[in-house]
Amino acid sequence: MTTLTGQTHHSLIAGEPVPGTEGTIRAVDPALGAPTGPEFTLLGGDQVAAAARAADEAFAAYRRTSPEVRAAFLDSGADRIAEAGEEIVAAAMRETGLPEARLRGELARTTNQLRLFAKVVRAGDHHGVRIEPALPDRTPLPRPDLRRRTLPLGPVAVFGASNFPLAFSVAGGDTASALAAGCPVVFKAHNAHPATGLLVGTALSRAVADHGLPGGVFSLVFGPGTAVGQQLVTDPRIKAVGFTGSRGGGTALMATAAAREVPIPVYAEMSSVNPVFVLPSALTGDRDALADGFVTSLNGSAGQLCTAPGLLFVAEGPDGDDLVARISDRLTAATGQTMLTPGICSSRLEGEKRLAGITGVREVGHGRGGEGQNAPAPAVYTTDAATFAEAPGLAEEIFGAVCLVVRYGSADRLPTLVEGMEGQLTATVHLDAETDTGDGVRELFEALELRAGRILVNGWPTGVDVGDAMVHGGPFPATSDGRSTSVGSAAIERFLRPVVYQNVPAALQPAPVHADNPWNLARRVDGVHVPAEAEKDV
Amino acid sequence: MTTLTGQTHHSLIAGEPVPGTEGTIRAVDPALGAPTGPEFTLLGGDQVAAAARAADEAFAAYRRTSPEVRAAFLDSGADRIAEAGEEIVAAAMRETGLPEARLRGELARTTNQLRLFAKVVRAGDHHGVRIEPALPDRTPLPRPDLRRRTLPLGPVAVFGASNFPLAFSVAGGDTASALAAGCPVVFKAHNAHPATGLLVGTALSRAVADHGLPGGVFSLVFGPGTAVGQQLVTDPRIKAVGFTGSRGGGTALMATAAAREVPIPVYAEMSSVNPVFVLPSALTGDRDALADGFVTSLNGSAGQLCTAPGLLFVAEGPDGDDLVARISDRLTAATGQTMLTPGICSSRLEGEKRLAGITGVREVGHGRGGEGQNAPAPAVYTTDAATFAEAPGLAEEIFGAVCLVVRYGSADRLPTLVEGMEGQLTATVHLDAETDTGDGVRELFEALELRAGRILVNGWPTGVDVGDAMVHGGPFPATSDGRSTSVGSAAIERFLRPVVYQNVPAALQPAPVHADNPWNLARRVDGVHVPAEAEKDV
Repeated sequence: MTTLTGQTHHSLIAGEPVPGTEGTIRAVDPALGAPTGPEFTLLGGDQVAAAARAADEAFAAYRRTSPEVRAAFLDSGADRIAEAGEEIVAAAMRETGLPEARLRGELARTTNQLRLFAKVVRAGDHHGVRIEPALPDRTPLPRPDLRRRTLPLGPVAVFGASNFPLAFSVAGGDTASALAAGCPVVFKAHNAHPATGLLVGTALSRAVADHGLPGGVFSLVFGPGTAVGQQLVTDPRIKAVGFTGSRGGGTALMATAAAREVPIPVYAEMSSVNPVFVLPSALTGDRDALADGFVTSLNGSAGQLCTAPGLLFVAEGPDGDDLVARISDRLTAATGQTMLTPGICSSRLEGEKRLAGITGVREVGHGRGGEGQNAPAPAVYTTDAATFAEAPGLAEEIFGAVCLVVRYGSADRLPTLVEGMEGQLTATVHLDAETDTGDGVRELFEALELRAGRILVNGWPTGVDVGDAMVHGGPFPATSDGRSTSVGSAAIERFLRPVVYQNVPAALQPAPVHADNPWNLARRVDGVHVPAEAEKDV
Repeated sequence: MTTLTGQTHHSLIAGEPVPGTEGTIRAVDPALGAPTGPEFTLLGGDQVAAAARAADEAFAAYRRTSPEVRAAFLDSGADRIAEAGEEIVAAAMRETGLPEARLRGELARTTNQLRLFAKVVRAGDHHGVRIEPALPDRTPLPRPDLRRRTLPLGPVAVFGASNFPLAFSVAGGDTASALAAGCPVVFKAHNAHPATGLLVGTALSRAVADHGLPGGVFSLVFGPGTAVGQQLVTDPRIKAVGFTGSRGGGTALMATAAAREVPIPVYAEMSSVNPVFVLPSALTGDRDALADGFVTSLNGSAGQLCTAPGLLFVAEGPDGDDLVARISDRLTAATGQTMLTPGICSSRLEGEKRLAGITGVREVGHGRGGEGQNAPAPAVYTTDAATFAEAPGLAEEIFGAVCLVVRYGSADRLPTLVEGMEGQLTATVHLDAETDTGDGVRELFEALELRAGRILVNGWPTGVDVGDAMVHGGPFPATSDGRSTSVGSAAIERFLRPVVYQNVPAALQPAPVHADNPWNLARRVDGVHVPAEAEKDV
């Protein structure tokens, strides 16, 4: 059992507590609007550099770990976090205001993610092996023996999300995928949930020690404001960045990374309004179910999900009016939930005020405010398609349970509306699967797929399945790099690069490309997939 | 047969000649140091924007082409270029000073690359299909139906290399891989070989027309200096950039692309000194063969290859002295070849002068200057490992046939020397495959693989095989993005991003992920590779 006793706690650099030199912080219980839990010291620049140095030193040994050692370490991380689960959930409830059931689910997702990446490491497809054996008699030139595999980029700086204090924080998707790739991680702790972060970080550091890995494989750093983040991203030992947070924060890190002497990739998941389109045919169906589904998706976790629906497109006319009326009814019965921090709550209130003040926008309905502080009522506004197309700022993300319903005249206009939109994580269409098969619907899908990473039908965008096919990404500004996903097994690809070995003798061939295939990987040989051998009977 | 008659020629925007408003250029015959061939008009900003607009307009239809149409178009591009081959080679000889045999080989490589990407398109692995069928009974949450595939990024701006006027220019690797991905291309013509470029561009535009594709699938733009390049990279319709050229040129485009309102990826192949390490054991072998191989690799194409060896590490002692003496002998018999442009030649001469002036660097030998202008003698210099480690600038690329031989005391020091190096396209080791299998050699390989995209044994880095396993890439500054290759079939991956379809009805599923698999693709289902069906008997 991990415990946080005592008044003052510190960053973990290579598994060791390091008292910071730059003052202290405490978390704020958002439901009380008051400090909670112990103090955490903040590191200075030299101390942050020491974490990057430890990661760099650990890289040499860590990247060479066998699949079984690396996978067992990830599984142990999951075990250690599960062991500390009760205390982690209690700390997270206090620090984030999220309800217990949500946090227990998120804890399970976090450990499941680590175990998923352990499986990914054991399967080994991420080595991306391609072999072209020598063709000495080929004309006009012989072909050399070519063996390609991927290598981890090096130490990764990860910045966690406030809204997923477990599944996208210290041991979340970015950390798990970077570790699986063979990259040590320096994690910049989120100051909104320091105790949660330290409990998880302690568990992960124990897993590092369990397997005799160098401590620098994982460090957790607390630091003041954005300075520590900027320092990490400029540190020459850091080779890639994972970030989940605001558009301002993400674009600042992108600019810093691009301005380095040696630029590095930044994978930032930033901002999305996740438009939902209700086609006329869907309005003739179960409008109660639509209204229920929408309000549940909007108000879950106080709307603080990257994929929460911020725009709902509903056809004009009596059926659409009826759907909006039902939404208004459901909303009246909905209760606000405590938001993550007072700052996030005030940004959300300002965003709603700005939206409400735009000419042509009117209120559909409000729920009730929640108990305690920082629990604003969920709110829905509406406008027409012409106002939406012309007024600036109507498609900007308001992080929280605020949605704008846009009433459109003809579904034919939707593709044009979509073409004016920025990149999104998701886009959703409600339709009649029997009848909505024509060119018009197809055109809408083709507009959407160019602007989003995930296209859903007859569902709601919140709730992201963590598996092999998932894409949680999308064109800028949804992410910094629409070529990647931050959720699911393909997230590992962000932290790898290919190398080819030409005529390297077998004795010096790395295991993934070795003639004997000692790791029993599926490999591509002469462009043809060759599966791993079925496991031997032993 | 493509012909260039008349005095003045123009850019091709969507297949149509467009007279430019910004003056004219003519090529320079580098062997004569005098203008050659017709005039080419240069486009103004609005005209360049029109090319980007045409590409954007063409994207909607082009990205939806079936594998067979897109592959047949690429094959036709190869056919059309081959038809114009005699005239293309004649123009390229005049404009680049490269010898006929080299250019005929490069023409074959160019058409082979287009045909390779036609095969890639037909095979369809680049769609990266991953399917996770619905699991309605999964607990705690059901799994939706998830179908992932890749989409092309959109119009790509390509900047060709001076040193590969065919295989890395108008219809070269970047163009072929972008077109294969489904991205229209706006090609910024290299002003050093305008007639060559226009002949190839005309052939490719004809292939576009052959298949009834929108003309904007390919445009070739001539423009003044760097302005047209900067404009293309800032154009909001351009979604990615391919570049081969200097470090200065590449980093300028990277900065421009990163500063856009919507940043885009830049794939720039820039600079590499391609170190070659001759281990002591290799010195006891055939030193004549080593000296021959080295001088041939150094002096081929006047040293104007991205992978030419610029650093040769040779052990101290009598065997190493003997190798260097043999290199000096071979060099005396070697003749300089005409360089691509007077500017490239003068940069090379300045680079050599700078190198020769560094304290601790002395000359090993010089060849003879070639006939005509701009054909400097190949040259080799030498220094010791301590000077190499301390004097700045010794590892900088000198584009041309100039190499620095670094004499090292103990092979144990090589990994440390390597750790001080920048990213490289290639690194080569000459060794005894029987005896060089110990930890020391392994340590050297591990240092090299972190700094290069291709590791070779007992060969020379010039000559890049164009196939499935090739990696022509490497950490910055070798390229802007070490996660990619610009040569070989994997180059297509640079221009794709993933999208997942969740619960989308079969009628609306795109072909690559459709339940019926109409394109007969190999797909990944539940994490397991499912091969394409063998072709039906028809």
